[in-house]
Amino acid sequence: MKNRLQLLRQKLKEKRLDGLLITHDPNIRYLTDFPAKESWLLVGLKEVFYITDFRYMLEAQKGVQGVRVIQHTNSLPEKLFELVIQQKMKRVGFEAPYVSYQLWRRLRHLCPNGCKLLNTQHLVESLRECKEAEEIAKVKAALDIHEASFRYLKKVVQPGLTELAIALKLEQFVKSRAAGFSFDPIVASGPNSCFPHAKVTQRRVASNEIVLIDWGIDLQGYKSDLTRMFFLGRIPKLIQTVNDTVVLAQQKAIDFIRADVPIAQVDYQARNYLEGHKLAKYFGHALGHGVGLEIHESPRLSQRNKDLLQEGMVITVEPAVYIPHKFGIRIEDMVLVREKKAEVLSAHIY
Amino acid sequence: MKNRLQLLRQKLKEKRLDGLLITHDPNIRYLTDFPAKESWLLVGLKEVFYITDFRYMLEAQKGVQGVRVIQHTNSLPEKLFELVIQQKMKRVGFEAPYVSYQLWRRLRHLCPNGCKLLNTQHLVESLRECKEAEEIAKVKAALDIHEASFRYLKKVVQPGLTELAIALKLEQFVKSRAAGFSFDPIVASGPNSCFPHAKVTQRRVASNEIVLIDWGIDLQGYKSDLTRMFFLGRIPKLIQTVNDTVVLAQQKAIDFIRADVPIAQVDYQARNYLEGHKLAKYFGHALGHGVGLEIHESPRLSQRNKDLLQEGMVITVEPAVYIPHKFGIRIEDMVLVREKKAEVLSAHIY
Repeated sequence: MKNRLQLLRQKLKEKRLDGLLITHDPNIRYLTDFPAKESWLLVGLKEVFYITDFRYMLEAQKGVQGVRVIQHTNSLPEKLFELVIQQKMKRVGFEAPYVSYQLWRRLRHLCPNGCKLLNTQHLVESLRECKEAEEIAKVKAALDIHEASFRYLKKVVQPGLTELAIALKLEQFVKSRAAGFSFDPIVASGPNSCFPHAKVTQRRVASNEIVLIDWGIDLQGYKSDLTRMFFLGRIPKLIQTVNDTVVLAQQKAIDFIRADVPIAQVDYQARNYLEGHKLAKYFGHALGHGVGLEIHESPRLSQRNKDLLQEGMVITVEPAVYIPHKFGIRIEDMVLVREKKAEVLSAHIY
Repeated sequence: MKNRLQLLRQKLKEKRLDGLLITHDPNIRYLTDFPAKESWLLVGLKEVFYITDFRYMLEAQKGVQGVRVIQHTNSLPEKLFELVIQQKMKRVGFEAPYVSYQLWRRLRHLCPNGCKLLNTQHLVESLRECKEAEEIAKVKAALDIHEASFRYLKKVVQPGLTELAIALKLEQFVKSRAAGFSFDPIVASGPNSCFPHAKVTQRRVASNEIVLIDWGIDLQGYKSDLTRMFFLGRIPKLIQTVNDTVVLAQQKAIDFIRADVPIAQVDYQARNYLEGHKLAKYFGHALGHGVGLEIHESPRLSQRNKDLLQEGMVITVEPAVYIPHKFGIRIEDMVLVREKKAEVLSAHIY
């Protein structure tokens, strides 16, 4: 974590900040390796303070490394500014996307004379975009459980079961391996697959139907995220054709991925391929997103993203076609951006 | 929902608002009966707009009642202000605790000339504090499943099982009844019970130990929240004595509960009783909280709350004693505030 803190302090210096208040849990976890909850981190140029309360003190004292654990009894903001004053901080940043307007007003009210409260964004998130080797190993460990659960699902998903029953079996399998989910699994059968964010229902899977399963593992904070289509029996030709087209659209995008290519163009590869088959209008969301300590993190693989891919980014590639009221196909894999190519981290899970 | 909207509009008029942007999911659900996600509600004095995107359109059109469902393709804030202009709104409120500083800046930037953006708080939440009969019925329905799962746990919780195994059995039981959890269940055995927010571990429960289980059901949006202590075999006298004291502290608070009593004094009843046994210093959190569409909602039963209890509030009463590194006892029940007394909604679950 020392290296991460050092890189962050570099950013603070560039912005002439002598303190940064971090309120976003995954950002705190990234810097401390501690699964923070309802606690704040104050990063100074020399010291770092983890401010928490009674409920989390015992765990924090055991778990937070290289950081001073401070207990507040009354109010987090008041304890924060005690430290700001004690440390003689003059320019303190806060994370604008994660501080509510109401909290900002309170912080501004408490901020002492001679100290400035400055909004920042994306400081820690930008460090998190490119994964360290250790982080990639953690994502791969999550994918190992993902693979095992996929093999299990291949046996389990059968006509006659409800979506809920399948989801429950999946949960049992994953949780009995001491892993968690990065989001509530989606099990969408037949026409339910046309909802991009389908809720699990009591619908019974029938023969000759598709089942879309989108699930993610959470292993010690790091996440995975894949979607697989299950074909039970004879599937209508139209569905098969759309499925094959989505697979090829995904391949177009993956073939294009490497360090330094424009993110918008990765999205374009898949979208344009679908457009060639008059299917782009059924693909209403972005092509993918970063994955790490959060299930959706930077970068977003959308048509409007003006950034370039960078080596070490871990992203999903998930083109889809949703035909309203009929069916939906989504194929989602996880990809590590390498200098010259994409490494498909989930290539073996099929 | 019509009545709720009417009451909210009354509040808008008091604040001379002609529109209110609602971004907090449970508040949207309260007003529309629809489990909103990544969508906004704009409540005008005559019309109501639910602004969502491609991913949720199909469900929203089916599910959102008495509201115009509007699809945005590009940006929620831009679509919002299109509607604000179209509806000729001049004073639009937003929910200050649920709008980030960053989003507020963007809203302010987009807000047209002649229109004011005004911060509000607690408008919908205050409506939600006192539950309607229909809502109480929904909480009771969640408690029915809670009771069944408690009976099941009584059979299941035995020495030799790990905390994780117990949690998994509980999950399977609840989810196979098409219910969910309002938070990740806490199963804390032996010394782990001294962590107020213990994480489930692989620790194996031993004979002559206590197990603290804190879990909540979520049934169609409405929540329950109870903590029960399980005593396996012969429990040391000290633990038994502390347990009995916590039970009596809870009774003191419950006996005091009725409409119009100061909330701080309810907390005081329990805390003072514990203090009489020199245990108050081990009780570091508030006595309880409101429960409804959120697991923690207004009111907070703390020493610092200056409000009065009101008829129809549904609250938890959860005194506790945590002896560091040794053990913890927490007893949590759910109570409905009646005019002259407390109705303990979970009295039959023991």
